[in-house]
Amino acid sequence: MKALQEKIRREGKVLSETILKVDSFLNHQIDANFMLEVGKEFANRFKDEKITKIVTIETSGIAPAMATAVCLDVPLVFAKKTKGSTMDKEIYVSQVKSFTKGIVYHINIAKEFINKQDKILVIDDFLAYGHALLGLKNIIKESGAQLVGAGIVIEKGFQGGGKELRDAGIRVESLAIIERMGKEGIVFQE
Amino acid sequence: MKALQEKIRREGKVLSETILKVDSFLNHQIDANFMLEVGKEFANRFKDEKITKIVTIETSGIAPAMATAVCLDVPLVFAKKTKGSTMDKEIYVSQVKSFTKGIVYHINIAKEFINKQDKILVIDDFLAYGHALLGLKNIIKESGAQLVGAGIVIEKGFQGGGKELRDAGIRVESLAIIERMGKEGIVFQE
Repeated sequence: MKALQEKIRREGKVLSETILKVDSFLNHQIDANFMLEVGKEFANRFKDEKITKIVTIETSGIAPAMATAVCLDVPLVFAKKTKGSTMDKEIYVSQVKSFTKGIVYHINIAKEFINKQDKILVIDDFLAYGHALLGLKNIIKESGAQLVGAGIVIEKGFQGGGKELRDAGIRVESLAIIERMGKEGIVFQE
Repeated sequence: MKALQEKIRREGKVLSETILKVDSFLNHQIDANFMLEVGKEFANRFKDEKITKIVTIETSGIAPAMATAVCLDVPLVFAKKTKGSTMDKEIYVSQVKSFTKGIVYHINIAKEFINKQDKILVIDDFLAYGHALLGLKNIIKESGAQLVGAGIVIEKGFQGGGKELRDAGIRVESLAIIERMGKEGIVFQE
């Protein structure tokens, strides 16, 4: 998605060879109408898949997931990183290792919101080592639903998660794949 | 908003006289197209106010805020409950007491994303005692921006936050105000 590559170049801040900050349109401030374009793009790429539900992880996945859900006219479910006080005991839980935060956390989805009739599209803001996606994959497998694919806004190609997931047979559609980055700027995979 | 009252009656679970669970369309699973209707309603109520930015708090505020931002064609900023590893040092911080979780937490907004030219509409999923909104109000005041008003999906009228904020001169537009609830069901303020 050319417009996304341009936006990353214009607004993104390369903090190191592994960390890209896109707080101006994706992770803190959200460019709502641009996010709607992102949602349209995902919806278009998966339009023939009869998706019944979008699944993401709080927090930064919610905006692109919401945009995609609106375009596909399906609900979205966001996995919670903490069990809320009003959350049922009937939940799927999986473990996720966070690259940016250097911690292990659990993601939780109430069983009532995914079932084996569902054809699920996972949406997330970043794909690095793929741990978040693997966590969701485990939950989706346990529920008996079908994981149709994953739509990723920005994939850090050099961290290998995308390759691993594609090798495992998952359709991963990333709107921008960063091959490498550093002081010289960002090189996208074309 | 009649459709919202009906949805709360149909899908909401009254867990006690103070706790309403709306995980099927607002706080865990999100009814994306219904949320877009919510956004249209907020956008319509504040359409003459020349809003430049939507502000909310992660996590459950993001979906209605995103919908409103799309309808008003402005960006949204979500306050973070933790300082992310890539977050600048230049941030506004305020303290918030959570009713449902019984804890005190801090909300953080990077200074670069609000400034004194901004006319801000705050959007949130719930209004109970009003602490989250007061926290955002403090940050907005510190930034020099103008707090135009607040759009709330569900106000628990009996917990007094709405009254306190309106008494303080803030325009609060709640799409559904619960007067009381319990085993007999939910009574809305008309």
